[in-house]
Amino acid sequence: MKPKIETIVLAADLVGTFIFAIEGAVAAMHSGLDLLGVMVIAFVAALGGGVTRDLLIGATPPNAIRDWRYPALTFVAGLLTFMFHNDAQGFPAFWLMVLDAAGLALFAVAGVEKAMLYRIRPFVAALMGTVTGVGGGVIRDVLLTRIPSVLVTDIYATAAFFGAVVVLAGRRLGLSPAMAGLAGGVACFVLRVVAATHGWHLPRAQG
Amino acid sequence: MKPKIETIVLAADLVGTFIFAIEGAVAAMHSGLDLLGVMVIAFVAALGGGVTRDLLIGATPPNAIRDWRYPALTFVAGLLTFMFHNDAQGFPAFWLMVLDAAGLALFAVAGVEKAMLYRIRPFVAALMGTVTGVGGGVIRDVLLTRIPSVLVTDIYATAAFFGAVVVLAGRRLGLSPAMAGLAGGVACFVLRVVAATHGWHLPRAQG
Amino acid sequence: MKPKIETIVLAADLVGTFIFAIEGAVAAMHSGLDLLGVMVIAFVAALGGGVTRDLLIGATPPNAIRDWRYPALTFVAGLLTFMFHNDAQGFPAFWLMVLDAAGLALFAVAGVEKAMLYRIRPFVAALMGTVTGVGGGVIRDVLLTRIPSVLVTDIYATAAFFGAVVVLAGRRLGLSPAMAGLAGGVACFVLRVVAATHGWHLPRAQG
Repeated sequence: MKPKIETIVLAADLVGTFIFAIEGAVAAMHSGLDLLGVMVIAFVAALGGGVTRDLLIGATPPNAIRDWRYPALTFVAGLLTFMFHNDAQGFPAFWLMVLDAAGLALFAVAGVEKAMLYRIRPFVAALMGTVTGVGGGVIRDVLLTRIPSVLVTDIYATAAFFGAVVVLAGRRLGLSPAMAGLAGGVACFVLRVVAATHGWHLPRAQG
Repeated sequence: MKPKIETIVLAADLVGTFIFAIEGAVAAMHSGLDLLGVMVIAFVAALGGGVTRDLLIGATPPNAIRDWRYPALTFVAGLLTFMFHNDAQGFPAFWLMVLDAAGLALFAVAGVEKAMLYRIRPFVAALMGTVTGVGGGVIRDVLLTRIPSVLVTDIYATAAFFGAVVVLAGRRLGLSPAMAGLAGGVACFVLRVVAATHGWHLPRAQG
Repeated sequence: MKPKIETIVLAADLVGTFIFAIEGAVAAMHSGLDLLGVMVIAFVAALGGGVTRDLLIGATPPNAIRDWRYPALTFVAGLLTFMFHNDAQGFPAFWLMVLDAAGLALFAVAGVEKAMLYRIRPFVAALMGTVTGVGGGVIRDVLLTRIPSVLVTDIYATAAFFGAVVVLAGRRLGLSPAMAGLAGGVACFVLRVVAATHGWHLPRAQG
């Protein structure tokens, strides 16, 4: 029995949401916010990308509004992070990066799939996958008044875009939706992890 | 004769809009903006929350676009603030906080009512009431490049959420829409004023 | 043969998009972003205003999403700017201002025309023309964490609003759509250039 594409979108969305919510909560605590601020940043970091995608492709109300489990999940993640933050201080940066790469891959795949469901054309659908992956982090950083890390982190949005392109190419080559999604997710994840561990970077303006 | 729920939404929206526009204009003047900047910040501070809510629940074009009285009201508020700012310098901070709490209560109630009109489910409808109350201030602070005050002000968004929940609970318990709205507005207003005067605050991360 | 109003909107949009994308890319390079960041800022600087307008008037998915040529054009502009930036260092500031004024005029006219196509009322349609003209720059500056230049630059949004009002007045006075658009664009362009060269400014709060 092949899993349905809607099921893949839902599962990838929920797991990615939880990872990004925790990351957002940690960033908010480092900025000295109180419990509510931590929960709000967890919410926008996890759901901002998907909400932006849904507004852009005309899928209103966005999933995050239609389905109460999404916001509830982010608030729980924010609360848990707030309560157990001290115990988690020793969590290694490497595994944080790996978890974040997994969340990015899940969101990029879910984003491009949903854009295709709404009949968005391939190039723009790949952009929507990228927006889904990085949009929440952009809003999180804007609210914490710093230049969005995605604009200065090497090979991050690039990995999301690449993964989305692989999904589209896999579909075009006749892969099943599940296989194409898997291939795109793995492509995004591997590119991000390898780039981070090898210090790959894009060119920067001189001077 | 019972007032219609639509009338409550409209009146609360207009009064709250005027209060938040003036507050936004004052913040813009403190940042050294010129007349146009002051009017723009008055506009987004007053209408940003409602526009965000309307985009999220799919009520496009938002009220603030459909009805020219909303933007016109905020521009007038910005202009008046700009002209009479010096005369108003001595206005006591306590009464500013009380007026702001009134605006917050009006917006939170109007927001949850409108979300219910669009058949948004209770938990998310309460979030929409909160977004309506605090969204304009968030956009105002982002444009003035400071961390949104709602993320660091004790018991502010919390009061909006609480008021929205009281509206929903009142409806569930069989109160008329007008009574439920009144109860929710009073609940939000009282919680905000008492928290501000007593220095109540939410827990903050240690270290 | 009179050009159709849809053709005017399209041509103005594309030319303005290219100008604003280059300007966005230059600003991003001055903030030290890498190639991807430069392309992203080119994208939002050029298309952020139109996307905001389309979301507000309910024209979803926005043009910039429906038509792949818009995002592709901004990425090409970002890439070209990145590659030939050093050769362009000597480009005189005066002509940069003139090009920017042309982009502003094109976007303001395209924005008010599109709002009218969607039956938005005149005053709000003029605001939508202004949002189209200045929205991308606002998002660009927010992402680069500085107060949006439009809020502190003298007679910039004012020129966009003025141009949009001239379009509306021309239509009301019986001009053809093409003539009204031309008159509005010239009005915006001339006001912006004259204000910049003469140092005209709006009043600012004292103290």
